[in-house]
Amino acid sequence: MKFLHTSDWHIGRYLHNQSLHNEQEAVLNQIIELALEHNVDALIVAGDIYDRSVPPATSVELLNKALNQILGLGIQVIMIAGNHDSHQRLGFGSNQMSNSGLHIIGPLTKTLCHIELKGKNSNAIFYTIPYAEPSRVRELFDCEVSTHEQAMNVLLKQIHDHDSKGLPKVVISHCFIDGAIDSESERPLSVGGADKISATLFEPFDYVALGHLHGPQYKGAEHVRYSGSPLKYSFSETNHNKSVTLVEFSCDSNKPEITLLPLTSPRDVRVIDGFLEDIIEQGKSDSNSEDYILVRLQDKHAILDAMGKLRAVYPNVLHLERAGLLANSEKTEIRRQHIKQNEMDMFSSFFTEMTGENLNTDQQALMGNLLEQLHKNKEN
Amino acid sequence: MKFLHTSDWHIGRYLHNQSLHNEQEAVLNQIIELALEHNVDALIVAGDIYDRSVPPATSVELLNKALNQILGLGIQVIMIAGNHDSHQRLGFGSNQMSNSGLHIIGPLTKTLCHIELKGKNSNAIFYTIPYAEPSRVRELFDCEVSTHEQAMNVLLKQIHDHDSKGLPKVVISHCFIDGAIDSESERPLSVGGADKISATLFEPFDYVALGHLHGPQYKGAEHVRYSGSPLKYSFSETNHNKSVTLVEFSCDSNKPEITLLPLTSPRDVRVIDGFLEDIIEQGKSDSNSEDYILVRLQDKHAILDAMGKLRAVYPNVLHLERAGLLANSEKTEIRRQHIKQNEMDMFSSFFTEMTGENLNTDQQALMGNLLEQLHKNKEN
Repeated sequence: MKFLHTSDWHIGRYLHNQSLHNEQEAVLNQIIELALEHNVDALIVAGDIYDRSVPPATSVELLNKALNQILGLGIQVIMIAGNHDSHQRLGFGSNQMSNSGLHIIGPLTKTLCHIELKGKNSNAIFYTIPYAEPSRVRELFDCEVSTHEQAMNVLLKQIHDHDSKGLPKVVISHCFIDGAIDSESERPLSVGGADKISATLFEPFDYVALGHLHGPQYKGAEHVRYSGSPLKYSFSETNHNKSVTLVEFSCDSNKPEITLLPLTSPRDVRVIDGFLEDIIEQGKSDSNSEDYILVRLQDKHAILDAMGKLRAVYPNVLHLERAGLLANSEKTEIRRQHIKQNEMDMFSSFFTEMTGENLNTDQQALMGNLLEQLHKNKEN
Repeated sequence: MKFLHTSDWHIGRYLHNQSLHNEQEAVLNQIIELALEHNVDALIVAGDIYDRSVPPATSVELLNKALNQILGLGIQVIMIAGNHDSHQRLGFGSNQMSNSGLHIIGPLTKTLCHIELKGKNSNAIFYTIPYAEPSRVRELFDCEVSTHEQAMNVLLKQIHDHDSKGLPKVVISHCFIDGAIDSESERPLSVGGADKISATLFEPFDYVALGHLHGPQYKGAEHVRYSGSPLKYSFSETNHNKSVTLVEFSCDSNKPEITLLPLTSPRDVRVIDGFLEDIIEQGKSDSNSEDYILVRLQDKHAILDAMGKLRAVYPNVLHLERAGLLANSEKTEIRRQHIKQNEMDMFSSFFTEMTGENLNTDQQALMGNLLEQLHKNKEN
């Protein structure tokens, strides 16, 4: 049994008002090519298929096309709903689709959902746990649980108790493992840490295909693993190496071999830090100038239309941070109550606020002259 | 081949802000019972499955449940997208579902879609035409069409040319046949009559399962037929007898036998016309007092909280028309510019506006006295 583990496709997502439809299409095509190249039996998507409960129709079309291609290659698909998905919408028609090898798991059910997939060399059993609030587990199982960990314990007990007849047990879940590293683009499942689940709960299973966190990582044991998202969905993910996880169980072992297969977006998401002039100069010879970019400007002075100037070389600058100005405003503690209403004082404090420096004697003299002239003109 | 023809389920629809979810659930259950009772091979739904392109999640769940039940009985389903449906959303996963006997036809494609269904006694071929704007046909087929009729001609030609090998040809379409009777609850497909299609176009086929119009009817020939919606979706449909259409082709004939099977809603939709007092009196012994009701009040005088009084006996009065007041205001042509600012004139015109009658001499005298007293009191 050989399969690809991926998650957090977030189809329909925007990055700073920029649609990522084209990048998503490209990266889904890469996943399909990798599936074909590695001759996998199945593709697992561990939740957050869409970015929102009602995705745009074009996103629905994109997913439909990708699934048709994958299934057309004879590769079975299991996908579960994440916290971004509408479980009912995603689950529509799932009973009818499963006959064709497309297993979509929408709302959590009381009955344990287990899917035995037949591989070319061996089989495995996949246990699916779509994202569920503890309250949903409490209601379904009529039990007292308040944290995500307690709820997961109830769900995993069913899997423990299920007889897989010696076949590898693969758990698919969308949750937050305690100690794993998050990024800025995951929507918190809960506040105050009540969403954290200990990795040890998952260790007894043969492989755990997790979704929710966007950086590929394992926690507790190598087989308890997040595939991460296929694309960088925030500027906090610029250092991620995005990938899909290839998992292979050989006939005679329940210990899988795990390989990360890199994915590349046609447009990278990155941060450029520096002075305007340098950035513009470097942009002229940057072969990836169409990347999605956050610029952190170190310049300390006000710049007219910095965004326009940057976009002349980097057309997809999506966000601009004036790190230089920010640093100044942090350094200088202007006590506003001390600003006197005299013009020279007002200008002096404005100058300090904008540049982080005090007016020197020459500057003070220049400004004094200017003010004097202005007053003279007013009097005439 | 024996099938039920229905259409315009509009799942998720509201009637004057009242959700019809419960009625829709009840009537879908009736359809399932009828399908079972008549031992049909298939169920055809000719468009407008949902009421809007993004239906509520509870509507998605309701449809999913109904389809699971129907398919669980071994009955195949063909449904096409209507003008209310999002074709892309409805069509998601349709390739995967068709293996299970659920044929959902979302967006129109250039390739003719024909589905041969095997019945217990004989087979038939179903040709599906989801609702499409002429512009969509123009684009797909690279042809010059501007009206719905021209577009339909292009689509039907494909069906004409297809060899059904002697099997009955059943066309499923969502459109407006010229001369057919509409109601207030259909959303017009086009303005100025460009949506009308001649029934003669459809006559050559063995059965035409139409959707769009909410009243059951045939046009041109008995086998070119609207099943109508299963529920009354507006007060203009109060006189409709809602039904599903049972269609049966025997082994040796391509002429079907057609029977209408009545459907009843747990709550009828009706109009009550009369005077407040009479309606309240009749309501006390009305065994269907929970029906959804539009009241046309004939009373000519202002009534305090008429809706509250009516709802005490008819809790589901959804709309109130003051037919009595309306009639008056139509009869009396008060020329506002002639109203003089004298108190007697003002009251007199107000009286006429409210009652439709002029003050008689006694009333004038009474009012004159009242005004006189009021002025005296003011002076004291």
